[in-house]
Order: sequence, then structure tokens, then C-alpha cells
Amino acid sequence: MSTALQISGPENLWVSCRAGEWDRPTPGICGEYVQTNLVVLPQADAFDFLRFCGRNPKPCPLIEATDPGDPEPKLTAPGADLRTDLPRYRVYRDGELVDEPTDVRDLWRDDLVAFLIGCSYSFEEALLAAGVPLRHIEAGTNVPMYRTKVACTPAGKFSGPLVVSMRPIPGALIPLAVTTTARVPQVHGAPVHVGSPESLGIDDLDSPDYGDNVEVRQGELPVFWACGVTPQEVALESAPEVMITHSPGHMFVTSMLNRELLAP
Amino acid sequence: MSTALQISGPENLWVSCRAGEWDRPTPGICGEYVQTNLVVLPQADAFDFLRFCGRNPKPCPLIEATDPGDPEPKLTAPGADLRTDLPRYRVYRDGELVDEPTDVRDLWRDDLVAFLIGCSYSFEEALLAAGVPLRHIEAGTNVPMYRTKVACTPAGKFSGPLVVSMRPIPGALIPLAVTTTARVPQVHGAPVHVGSPESLGIDDLDSPDYGDNVEVRQGELPVFWACGVTPQEVALESAPEVMITHSPGHMFVTSMLNRELLAP
Repeated sequence: MSTALQISGPENLWVSCRAGEWDRPTPGICGEYVQTNLVVLPQADAFDFLRFCGRNPKPCPLIEATDPGDPEPKLTAPGADLRTDLPRYRVYRDGELVDEPTDVRDLWRDDLVAFLIGCSYSFEEALLAAGVPLRHIEAGTNVPMYRTKVACTPAGKFSGPLVVSMRPIPGALIPLAVTTTARVPQVHGAPVHVGSPESLGIDDLDSPDYGDNVEVRQGELPVFWACGVTPQEVALESAPEVMITHSPGHMFVTSMLNRELLAP
Repeated sequence: MSTALQISGPENLWVSCRAGEWDRPTPGICGEYVQTNLVVLPQADAFDFLRFCGRNPKPCPLIEATDPGDPEPKLTAPGADLRTDLPRYRVYRDGELVDEPTDVRDLWRDDLVAFLIGCSYSFEEALLAAGVPLRHIEAGTNVPMYRTKVACTPAGKFSGPLVVSMRPIPGALIPLAVTTTARVPQVHGAPVHVGSPESLGIDDLDSPDYGDNVEVRQGELPVFWACGVTPQEVALESAPEVMITHSPGHMFVTSMLNRELLAP
């Protein structure tokens, strides 16, 4: 296994994944580069899903949708192969998880479309750089995520609830956290809610639906951002014949720099 | 007395004030135009005060400082006369309020410098336009304001605490309220704090130091912005030989449009 230090750029990471030398999570790996969620669906579902993303840009900020059958994300990671260059995948059939391989070459078809969807790792880098501490990163745990009672705008066969991630932020830093993330709408953008879990239909903040619980301390408020788990959840609920995603935490790393997200 | 409907633009308002026909408060008057706080000080104090504003841009966003002795704000209200064109003034001597006239021509001196400082009326117009309701406006009362334990950055003889205004905002609209006001740093900009009055040293949110109390309802949080009362308070505490300000609510209306504040 390679160590993080030996991964000097996304091309290196792609080659290591392709050769079976890297199958570990990607937080902190190639930290300057945009990491994305992956959702692969048959073309029969892709038009509905593309409209769903367009109608729900905060949870589903689309970075790239590939041409049907083409495993190369030509715009944001030219030279990469989405069938091999992620550390680990999940494969669902009719809405059920059936496999968690490191390579999906044998499953690839001429009618598959890959969706690369923005990921909070990019905005977390921006928050840390701005001086906003992030408890789950300090604790070395996963960010807590919650299904809400807020419905996404449906499109065709796709509909479902908004999923949010939560970060506790001191009151004096909330304005900075809002403005910093508002500048990167391609990776979820500004928060969707501040302060009242019950307004989102979250009954118990200490029991996240995904990820790990974190403490909200005196003077801090829970701040909620739209989460990239939403499109996966929604796609899964429609029980597509086949769906391929990244395995949680094992994201696709593009060759686009986080700072390019700030370009006017 | 003229009614609001007869005041069609700032030049009209200036003329009406000058003629003694308008001495009423200015909220909602010439609503598209930037209104400002006025602080007039002798040149001997002006350099310290100018540096104080520069060091504390959130409570003291300087729109214009006039040339000594010149009562015309040539940059933001050419043709206006700051000695006559506000509805009502306050005159302080050695830190004590001594008069509240509608005209200060007889007090004017060749060494007086006028400071026009951005006012929350401009950002409130932006918040309402963005769809953020403002309770004190709905209630027809003044915004509640509080002295905090946060010290401004001192400059020369000027030092003192930050004063903040508070508006209760529903959690789902806080991101919008932050990004909307962050776009207008010339009128206090983004909030300085969200959610915890005690972090600012405010013991009782229901007892504002200035203005009127407003209710914070379920699902809302108190959001605090730096307030233009700060520079007046700080100037007053230094007990200058003479200081002239606008009377509360009786602002100076420039010929600059609020939308010009959004220019890149």
C-alpha cells in the first residue's frame, strides 16, 4: 500500500487506484484538488436524474455529467477512467447493495452515464483556511448527517428528502462560515439552516442518520449544509436496475483545483 | 409640513429641510437613496476619529469625510449643505447634549469636519428586497441596540465598546441575511454574531440599551450587526469641545443610490 505522502497529484492517485495499490479513503489526499461524489446510472434514468440535480443545486451541485458510455470525465479530469480510478465502489441492483469492489470494468456498459457531484471536502478546506474550526475533523470522525423533512424538488422518477450535514460553529464565526461557503456553490454553497434542528424535522441532534455524532458546545450553534448523500439516497429510493457509486469516503479526485471554484 | 409623498428625491428633501418645511424622521423617505449618520468634529479631533473609523470599519463604515470647513459633501451629495439639509440635529458641548436644532449655520466653523457614516436603513432595504422579514419594521418600532463587551480598536483619544443592533431571523433565512448584508460593507456588512447574546456580554436581550425591544420567536435566532451608534458613543465619551450629529432617526440623505453600494 502506498502512503499519503507518496500521492503527489490526482494522476498519481488514479494510476495507484488502477493498479490496485490504493484502496483507502481520500480525505486529505491531494487536498488542493476538487473531490466528488460519483453516481452512475443507465441512460434511461439519466435525463430524469440530470433534471433532478438541476432542480436541487444545493444538495446536488453537478460538476460534470459524462457522455453515455464514456468512462472519461473529459472536462474535470481528462485522462482519468471512472471505472478504475476511484479507491472503492458500491454497486446496487434494484436498490440493493450487492458489491463493494475496487474496479467496475466488468460492469461497464455503453449506456452508463456518470455524474460527478460536488463534495463538502472542498468547502471544508475553504472553512479551515478562513479560520473556522471543524469539530469532526479535530475529532478525526465523519461529519454527522441527517435526513430532513424538507422535500427536494422532484424530477421524473426521482424524489425524496434533503439530507444535511451539520457542523457546530461559534456564533461569532457563523457569518464567516456563511460567506466562505456561499462563494463555492459548486460544492453545496451557503448553509441551508442555522440553529433549529426541529425546524428541519431533526428530533435528536445526537443521533445522526449517517456519520458520527459531534458535541455542540456553549456559544456554538448547529449549522446545516445540504449534503451530497442526498442524490445517492434519492437515486437509490427509485430502485434503478443498476447504480454504481463511490464507497463512502472513497471519493473521485478530479484534476480541478479547489481554488478554480472561486473563479468569477 | 410636507408629507412623504411630496418628497420625490434627495434634492427636494434638502430644500424642504433648508426651508424649515421638513423636520420629521427619514425612515422610508427617498428609500432608494443611501442615508447616513452624521458626526461633525473640530479638525483637532478629526484625524484621530478618521483613523478610528478606518480601524473599525464594521461599526464605522465611512461614506465620506468632508474638507475642513466645507459643509458640502461633494462626493456623495453635491449641492447639499450639511448645516441645513438634515431634518434635525443634536449639539453636544464637552460631551453634554445642549441643543436639538433644525439648523446649525450659526455654529459652523472653518475647522469643522463632517463624517458621513453608513446606516442600516440601506441594508434593511436589501434584506426586505431579498425576502428577509424584519420584525421592528413590521412593528413600526426602532431596532433594539446593545452596548457589548467587545472593545473597538482604539485610535488616539477615541476608544470604547462596540454597539450592535439585533434582528430576529428564522434559522432558514440566516444564510440569506448574512450573504445579503455581506455584499454591502459600506453599510455595516455581514453580522458580527449569531445566536448567543451572552458571548457579546448582553445579559438581558429584552432590555436593549437603545431602541425598542422585539420578540425573538421559536425557530428564530438573534442576529447582531455592528451599529452606527458606536462612533457617536465613542466620540461622545471623549467629551469633545463641540460635536454635532443628526438627531436619532433624522438621517442625512445622500444622492447616492443604495444599488450603487453593490457596484464591483
